[in-house]
Amino acid sequence: MLGQMQNHPLLISSLIEHAERHHGDGEIVSRRVEGDIHRTNWVTVAKRARQIANALDAEKLAPNERVATLAWNGYRHLELYFGVSGSQRVLHTLNPRLHPQQLAWIINHAEDSVVCFDTTFTPLIAAVHSKCPTVKRWVALCDADKLPADSGIPNLVSYEAWLGAQSSTYSWPVFDENTASSLCYTSGTTGNPKGVLYSHRSSLLHAYAVVFPDSLNLSARDAILPVVPMFHVNAWGLPYAAAVAGCKLVFPGPAMDGKSIYELIEGEQVSMAAGVPTVWQMLLGHMQAGGLKFSSLKGTVIGGSACPPAMLTTFQDTYGVEVLHAWGMTEMSPLGTVCTLKNKQLALDEAGRLKVRLKQGRAVCGVDMKIVDGAGKELPWDGRTYGDLLVRGPWIIDQYFKAEGASPLVDGWFPTGDVATIDADGFMQITDRSKDVIKSGGEWISSIDVENVAMAHPAVAMAACVGMPHPKWDERPIVVVALKPGAELSREELLAFYEGKIAKWQTPDDVVFVPAIPLGATGKMMKVSLREQLKGYTLPGV
Amino acid sequence: MLGQMQNHPLLISSLIEHAERHHGDGEIVSRRVEGDIHRTNWVTVAKRARQIANALDAEKLAPNERVATLAWNGYRHLELYFGVSGSQRVLHTLNPRLHPQQLAWIINHAEDSVVCFDTTFTPLIAAVHSKCPTVKRWVALCDADKLPADSGIPNLVSYEAWLGAQSSTYSWPVFDENTASSLCYTSGTTGNPKGVLYSHRSSLLHAYAVVFPDSLNLSARDAILPVVPMFHVNAWGLPYAAAVAGCKLVFPGPAMDGKSIYELIEGEQVSMAAGVPTVWQMLLGHMQAGGLKFSSLKGTVIGGSACPPAMLTTFQDTYGVEVLHAWGMTEMSPLGTVCTLKNKQLALDEAGRLKVRLKQGRAVCGVDMKIVDGAGKELPWDGRTYGDLLVRGPWIIDQYFKAEGASPLVDGWFPTGDVATIDADGFMQITDRSKDVIKSGGEWISSIDVENVAMAHPAVAMAACVGMPHPKWDERPIVVVALKPGAELSREELLAFYEGKIAKWQTPDDVVFVPAIPLGATGKMMKVSLREQLKGYTLPGV
Repeated sequence: MLGQMQNHPLLISSLIEHAERHHGDGEIVSRRVEGDIHRTNWVTVAKRARQIANALDAEKLAPNERVATLAWNGYRHLELYFGVSGSQRVLHTLNPRLHPQQLAWIINHAEDSVVCFDTTFTPLIAAVHSKCPTVKRWVALCDADKLPADSGIPNLVSYEAWLGAQSSTYSWPVFDENTASSLCYTSGTTGNPKGVLYSHRSSLLHAYAVVFPDSLNLSARDAILPVVPMFHVNAWGLPYAAAVAGCKLVFPGPAMDGKSIYELIEGEQVSMAAGVPTVWQMLLGHMQAGGLKFSSLKGTVIGGSACPPAMLTTFQDTYGVEVLHAWGMTEMSPLGTVCTLKNKQLALDEAGRLKVRLKQGRAVCGVDMKIVDGAGKELPWDGRTYGDLLVRGPWIIDQYFKAEGASPLVDGWFPTGDVATIDADGFMQITDRSKDVIKSGGEWISSIDVENVAMAHPAVAMAACVGMPHPKWDERPIVVVALKPGAELSREELLAFYEGKIAKWQTPDDVVFVPAIPLGATGKMMKVSLREQLKGYTLPGV
Repeated sequence: MLGQMQNHPLLISSLIEHAERHHGDGEIVSRRVEGDIHRTNWVTVAKRARQIANALDAEKLAPNERVATLAWNGYRHLELYFGVSGSQRVLHTLNPRLHPQQLAWIINHAEDSVVCFDTTFTPLIAAVHSKCPTVKRWVALCDADKLPADSGIPNLVSYEAWLGAQSSTYSWPVFDENTASSLCYTSGTTGNPKGVLYSHRSSLLHAYAVVFPDSLNLSARDAILPVVPMFHVNAWGLPYAAAVAGCKLVFPGPAMDGKSIYELIEGEQVSMAAGVPTVWQMLLGHMQAGGLKFSSLKGTVIGGSACPPAMLTTFQDTYGVEVLHAWGMTEMSPLGTVCTLKNKQLALDEAGRLKVRLKQGRAVCGVDMKIVDGAGKELPWDGRTYGDLLVRGPWIIDQYFKAEGASPLVDGWFPTGDVATIDADGFMQITDRSKDVIKSGGEWISSIDVENVAMAHPAVAMAACVGMPHPKWDERPIVVVALKPGAELSREELLAFYEGKIAKWQTPDDVVFVPAIPLGATGKMMKVSLREQLKGYTLPGV
């Protein structure tokens, strides 16, 4: 027997309609590629999203055809989020940090019909367009008079001319909420990239979960700054969540340096910002150098990589900004856990609270998680036992795009590739990536623990720990370090800095200084590249 | 093309599993029928919910069979919420304030198979059981040794013996999320009561919306006190929302007097309480008499009836408690709007903010609303134009239980029976119930406006405004007043109190003093009964 409530599918179009109707004058502020600040609102975004839908109809795009974006965070990208998915096409966000060859591979694999790109990327598109036979329309995200001249890109039109020709009257279609809404490829450190195909249902349920008080806690009083890119996992779902809650949105465009981000936060009175540690490192560097303070920022959400303890305490103690440690993956839409404390943790002393805050946090309602041993047996939640972390839930991947039946799942659970502990209160802590763990003499050493100690040293800008082959112990850790500009530090000084902070047998055997740690397309440290750079290296005394 | 995310139906069982796993030691505190305070937690509630599922299996109840409750707010009722719906039976909450004849009618209409009742209601069950042929099992919510003796109720068992005999091992079934989960009859002022049949999907989506920061803003740090009864619209969805957020739950049992509620709030450090104005009137009366203060309460949610301005300002100014005005209906699960302010309203002066706070508020994301004129034409959102309020959304009724195709909807929208304005920022304000509006000389007078002035008088405990036939004006308002114990007030003094507070032509023509205003089963004023009491009354000079 079915309930007798109304049947309204969970569609992305319903979010833009809600935002337009209930938060019409809510601001969307963007720093553009040109460097200027652009202001619009939800009414205008909704109107232009309908024009996009009409433009896609004019291109004769069938439902489910892919419309790709190669763009920074900005209002035009936001309009495409709603216009493309709302009209039952699939928004495919391309990562501009990829190699042109990989980009072409992804466009072909996704069979994109239209590609919309920021003019920053005109050279990239000029380099790949001839290898992309499925693309019938290239759209440059600019005014008609800014259209790149002599680019050689065929069927090229400016975004403003393309949508400007269209009516803003459009009725969003109603269809099955399980329909594909958007596509994002994982930047895959090995093998070809793999596409994660989100649905309208998964996107809306995820957006609700993002809004929760124990997640990002978003209300109509918030101004949020997604520094985390819209080209990667839908900027953690923030464009959708902002429409749910009626937030003001502030977009940084391509300028993610500390000065630009700081000016946006202050100028637009941002209350909540979301990004990866490397971006915050730059922001804190700028603020420390200039003796600056925040006047509106209440919280930052830090994810993508584990947050170094030094960064967390600096944000909290020096700037009074609450740091929410979060964890997720492209395959998880991405939100899995957020580290919001319960009353009993709030009652701990400062050191006790910090210990909890450094964990990745509690599962958001909707996400189920467990840790298992090598045989798949579930392990206890005691905060000490570690095992492979598995997850499941309505916004977690079932299978990759075009995987043709091959499933990454294990008994219905998605293996995250992370090794973690979970404590009795449900706080999960990533010990390491399964592939980054250093196996030394039958024991595991967390590369993250080793990195965190180095990162806490005032001279260190970034640190990466990798395992090196050792005849007796199988592997021993070394730490690869990039120093802050002008800072000096010797191998011996850094190794001495480990004393008392980590067990002797976990302390790295060596320090290697490099000008910079290689970062991947999403700002994460690329240990695969690092290991390649270290080819020929041998441990001291080996 | 469908997205490729995991298929997990939204089931009520997933909520109790989440609460057990992530908030196992979270407390559930109940004042029992016996008067004592009982303490349990989510682990134990989950365990006993599984025992209930096994007990229902032992009774050979098929999926979809109805299990009724006639019970106060308490842990056993909570266990039934999850055990009954989780095992794919339908939880039918009966309203103990109904007349026995109406109660029997509802049990028969719903075809309840099992009825679980608090022992307070043993006389009521003794009076109706013989008229309820579908009921094969009566369960008294008590220990085995407290089972009512010589009640004459057949197939009677104590709850503790009934579930105590069962294993706590049980795998929750997985089924279509649109399956019926629970049933609640509207107390219908005219005609037979009508059943609203909620689904698992509607209950979960509604619970998510309740948790939102701009709704009730519930986190794992909250202790919530649902004074609003679990026998009516699932206590506004709070039992489910508490499981989503991992809140502490505090249940008042049958003791809803000011003293008992105050003691619970203080003793259990309640942060958020939810109830109808009449309950808060009693609480404030108790506090004023004793010169008491709150030490933990941050907010109250007031719904069910419009909140009198005097109550709102007393809560805010005297006790520092934020009042959230909310609005909904049984047919809406019930949440429709909550009055949380945006930054621009917060920037108003005190009087300006109060004016907004007195509105019923903004639509929760998921609820769509509009106002229409008599011809069904949509009216502007200008804060002045009023019209019939219509709503739609995934937790709003499609049709009543056993309505056999007859739909209450108008073009897919549910007519609420309320008359309202909506302002440009989406704040809705109920002007009146369509049927309570007083039509005087072609103009409408809001009965609520007239009542609010009287309620602001210190001598008035409760006031109801009704229209009386008038030869010239069609109708004229009178106000029916119950005074506070020991208070004195004359007709002329009260009429003089209206001066300057309301337009002359909206001022009531007469005052009628009564010992008490008749209240319905859910604590709302029963104007139908009041009009019956006033039979034979004529307006002065008519």
